[in-house]
Amino acid sequence: MYRSNTCGELRLTDKGKEVTLAGWVQTVRKFGAITFVDLRDRYGITQLLFGEELNPQLDASPLGREFVLQAKGVVNERSNKNPNIATGDIEVLVQSFTVLNKSAIPPFTIQDDTDGGDDLRMKYRYLDLRRNAVKKNLELRYAVNRSARNYLHEKGFMDIETPFLIKSTPEGARDFVVPSRMNAGQFYALPQSPQTFKQLLMVSGYDRYYQVVKCFRDEDLRADRQPEFTQIDCEMAFVEQEDILNMFEGLAKRIFKDVKGIDYTDKVERMSWEEAMWNYGNDKPDIRFSMKLCNLKFPAHTFPAKQSISSLIDGAGFNVFDAAETVVAIAVPGCSEYTRKQTDELTEWVKRPQIGMKGMVFIKVNADGTYKSSVDKFYNEEKLKAIAEATGAKAGDLILILAGAEERTRKAISELRLEMAERLGMRRKDEFKLLWVLDFPLFEYSEDDNRWVARHHPFTSPKPSDISTMINNNPAIENAAEYLKHPYANIKANAYDIVLNGNEIGGGSIRIYQRELQEKMFEALGMDKEEQLHKFGFLLGAFEYGAPPHGGIAFGFDRFCAILGGSESIRDFIAFPKNNSGRDVMLDAPATIDDKQLNELSIKVDVK
Amino acid sequence: MYRSNTCGELRLTDKGKEVTLAGWVQTVRKFGAITFVDLRDRYGITQLLFGEELNPQLDASPLGREFVLQAKGVVNERSNKNPNIATGDIEVLVQSFTVLNKSAIPPFTIQDDTDGGDDLRMKYRYLDLRRNAVKKNLELRYAVNRSARNYLHEKGFMDIETPFLIKSTPEGARDFVVPSRMNAGQFYALPQSPQTFKQLLMVSGYDRYYQVVKCFRDEDLRADRQPEFTQIDCEMAFVEQEDILNMFEGLAKRIFKDVKGIDYTDKVERMSWEEAMWNYGNDKPDIRFSMKLCNLKFPAHTFPAKQSISSLIDGAGFNVFDAAETVVAIAVPGCSEYTRKQTDELTEWVKRPQIGMKGMVFIKVNADGTYKSSVDKFYNEEKLKAIAEATGAKAGDLILILAGAEERTRKAISELRLEMAERLGMRRKDEFKLLWVLDFPLFEYSEDDNRWVARHHPFTSPKPSDISTMINNNPAIENAAEYLKHPYANIKANAYDIVLNGNEIGGGSIRIYQRELQEKMFEALGMDKEEQLHKFGFLLGAFEYGAPPHGGIAFGFDRFCAILGGSESIRDFIAFPKNNSGRDVMLDAPATIDDKQLNELSIKVDVK
Repeated sequence: MYRSNTCGELRLTDKGKEVTLAGWVQTVRKFGAITFVDLRDRYGITQLLFGEELNPQLDASPLGREFVLQAKGVVNERSNKNPNIATGDIEVLVQSFTVLNKSAIPPFTIQDDTDGGDDLRMKYRYLDLRRNAVKKNLELRYAVNRSARNYLHEKGFMDIETPFLIKSTPEGARDFVVPSRMNAGQFYALPQSPQTFKQLLMVSGYDRYYQVVKCFRDEDLRADRQPEFTQIDCEMAFVEQEDILNMFEGLAKRIFKDVKGIDYTDKVERMSWEEAMWNYGNDKPDIRFSMKLCNLKFPAHTFPAKQSISSLIDGAGFNVFDAAETVVAIAVPGCSEYTRKQTDELTEWVKRPQIGMKGMVFIKVNADGTYKSSVDKFYNEEKLKAIAEATGAKAGDLILILAGAEERTRKAISELRLEMAERLGMRRKDEFKLLWVLDFPLFEYSEDDNRWVARHHPFTSPKPSDISTMINNNPAIENAAEYLKHPYANIKANAYDIVLNGNEIGGGSIRIYQRELQEKMFEALGMDKEEQLHKFGFLLGAFEYGAPPHGGIAFGFDRFCAILGGSESIRDFIAFPKNNSGRDVMLDAPATIDDKQLNELSIKVDVK
Repeated sequence: MYRSNTCGELRLTDKGKEVTLAGWVQTVRKFGAITFVDLRDRYGITQLLFGEELNPQLDASPLGREFVLQAKGVVNERSNKNPNIATGDIEVLVQSFTVLNKSAIPPFTIQDDTDGGDDLRMKYRYLDLRRNAVKKNLELRYAVNRSARNYLHEKGFMDIETPFLIKSTPEGARDFVVPSRMNAGQFYALPQSPQTFKQLLMVSGYDRYYQVVKCFRDEDLRADRQPEFTQIDCEMAFVEQEDILNMFEGLAKRIFKDVKGIDYTDKVERMSWEEAMWNYGNDKPDIRFSMKLCNLKFPAHTFPAKQSISSLIDGAGFNVFDAAETVVAIAVPGCSEYTRKQTDELTEWVKRPQIGMKGMVFIKVNADGTYKSSVDKFYNEEKLKAIAEATGAKAGDLILILAGAEERTRKAISELRLEMAERLGMRRKDEFKLLWVLDFPLFEYSEDDNRWVARHHPFTSPKPSDISTMINNNPAIENAAEYLKHPYANIKANAYDIVLNGNEIGGGSIRIYQRELQEKMFEALGMDKEEQLHKFGFLLGAFEYGAPPHGGIAFGFDRFCAILGGSESIRDFIAFPKNNSGRDVMLDAPATIDDKQLNELSIKVDVK
């Protein structure tokens, strides 16, 4: 061992002890004939004091930033204590030292606020990982991993490893594939998730399975996607939805407790997908704050159970609203005093291509009870008041209204709601609020193929009450324009998403476990019998031999960690992430390979 | 929840309780008007009693093997107790039941001694996994996983995930590669191990790292190899070999305790590679029994420090020994009474192509102190006695002697030693003996390329005392015939293998952490500067910025589990293994993929 203690360990009670430390030189300060060195390791920083007698050796072998140093000496009480660090009461009077390795000058400073840009830090990720900010993230990640494993173990779950070299069955996302040398012309695929394997394990009777497991999706990478990512993957047999929700909100609460010291004693809210879309405009609402949508106008088919209040805006001659499919408002608390400049800026914000609105209407609910809007020409005080009341606005609030096509407008108001909350400090990083979103539609309609696609995945079961609808109807869509009238359009999934602070951190479903129903599902997705057997014959086969009712969930481990760490970027919580082109810039991968390798694999590169 | 209790849970103390069980029908027995069903789940078996009143329902929906059944009833004391199972004192008097799913007749019996052959069991692996024998293996595997994680956590190790999509740097084994769609013509590789990443983590200061991680090698599969396998992968900084040995024999002992209930208090033996080869003929000796080799004759260069005793056999006119490079014997205890048939059978055994000997010589050390050998013509009683004494044989032992070329003969005697021990019951499955093998040669000579290859891998450090030899000599081999005289031939590695019952269960080394030495290593392996930078530029770069001394180990998780489970086949300890052609016969993978997928990946299949 090159050390007797770590750099975070020594205290005043160790005074007089002979110790050996090893670590990295954080700083070197000369003070007359004396030299102070801050020595850093994973556990902390300890001040070393080099007396005059060591100067010849220091002169012969000068210390620099990030040098690896071993120092022997005696623990001494510091005259000038540093209350900001745990070892701040002591220093080590160095008796002898060895430079274990030198360091070139790092391309950026190894500090919380580094001067290194993103690209540089990724190229020298091994130096970036030395920064306390990054280390804390990886420590948090490990704590979450450990906490999840402990909870699941205590609940009787078993970690069972599933294979990585499997069969390509692209549904939705693209598979990464791996050419097989021993089976020329054939390919393995890397798993997008261990979905079918964990279901087979249920068929095998393992009953409670988990894995913290890498998954792979070859998708065009958006800002915060990685081609390889990690799931906390779980499955249970002999359960209904209620059992899963209880078990896994328990997991989330345990993680809050273990990792953040938070007693999450509140009941976890539950909301139907429809209510989420109605009240928040998206299926993963941030419910740390209210600011619910007021649906002034909406297409009847989207929310068949809801009453229209479009009379509040109709017939005023305001063409923007009259022509719009959807008109939706939020009441932003305490912003009635926004200046023209501020409302203009917000209008510009919603007109950005990412949001895509043509404009924005506002109504100020002044403190004195009067109203001022950008549509005073069309709506008198009384009408404004009626609208304001519908939105639930109070005196001092600013009502923002968007109008346009349903999907885009709903998305835009949802974004605007989050943006306003962000600006108003209502999205606190240290506040955590979980939410279950339930009762998703089982199918979505694909216009391109004029058929159904699985909203979640093809193994998700319909609600028990919808099973007969699914079995007893032909999934084919005769009349594309009227797909909404097809019985399949109203089938609800036995599925659930768990949302944390406006981010989906996990999702799952009760699975299909009957061969007939599974075949019907595949048929609905446009797979004929032959394709079903080719791709999923093993699963259909398994369902013949006593498959139990079962269901599960997968948590997006990277994202869960990021949110717990107060970040929205998963990359900060991955030791060696890839960039947006799927490249590892440190390794310089992917890269070309030898012709010999290609030959052995019976493939050729064929770049168009 | 479909159940209130599991099938392994109920006891006499639960008598009178109303319960709901769910599981699989193991057996159905009619007893007059009454029906007994053994219901099975992961936790055990509970007997259900269906009274007469349920016969109409049973007749309408008869139960069969592996049906999934839910039954409600009351716990009752059994008149006919079964002491062999934990629930044997009770039964459940069924009040109502539901068939949750039917089962076709399984293609083999779901029992410890199944009638299913290997191929059938692999095709229906989801049924094979139901068998208690397989379940026990996976439970053991999970227990090992859990125990290892707990130990490493307590010792301050951190689980840090390393990437799966990396760069192809084939050294030794072939990489599996993954075409990149976004970087046309380029490929990722799947890691053969996280070797360089864990070293970078040491450079980053993480100091104690572990991971239970899948690794991939595209090799021709021998009987007990898998293209994907799992390692318990560990690395530590600021350590020397002694620290690693102590830490990881501690891990093995902890696993013995947690998983097998064994207090492994013995000191773990250590042995140099040379001593292992000398005494046991291989580098992973089974030391549960002695039966050491007696090296009657050997090429001087193989064991330069050892004294020759070939005078014991020389000059007797026995050409087989005279012409052989190596003559080596073992004394098999208590086998002097072997019949001619038995010694003939052993001779046939060593002549099998897998062993490859031309014959075998034996000497019987009779109980009365006389000798009888197959070479009495050449060696008189006195000479036989001298040989017998050299082998350490006692009265009643049978000495077996093999002769031939060094490498083959040493391998053969090693195999013969294991075979004899096996036959004599000296390899007990419930006895566990660890061994460290140390001081391996750093290099092996490659005749094909007339250069050195790394025996372990290119990141293994030489012994500290050999570093200057390595730095100060040109690795090029001028005279191929005399490669043994090259200074590199005697460099010892700072490496160690951990051996359990004759199986290597782990291995590792103290790593190179100096750029100059690492470059010298790459040079010795025939890599020019350009290739070094292309393949390992990131690592050489990292060594510029303060790399600490470090080292680590990787345990072969699959094999470790197999040996703990008393098996030599890792396949029995993997949930979804592949066969010897690398195929998953259940999935039928690998398989062909769509042209669309190939096009997107910019590759073509090119089968010759």
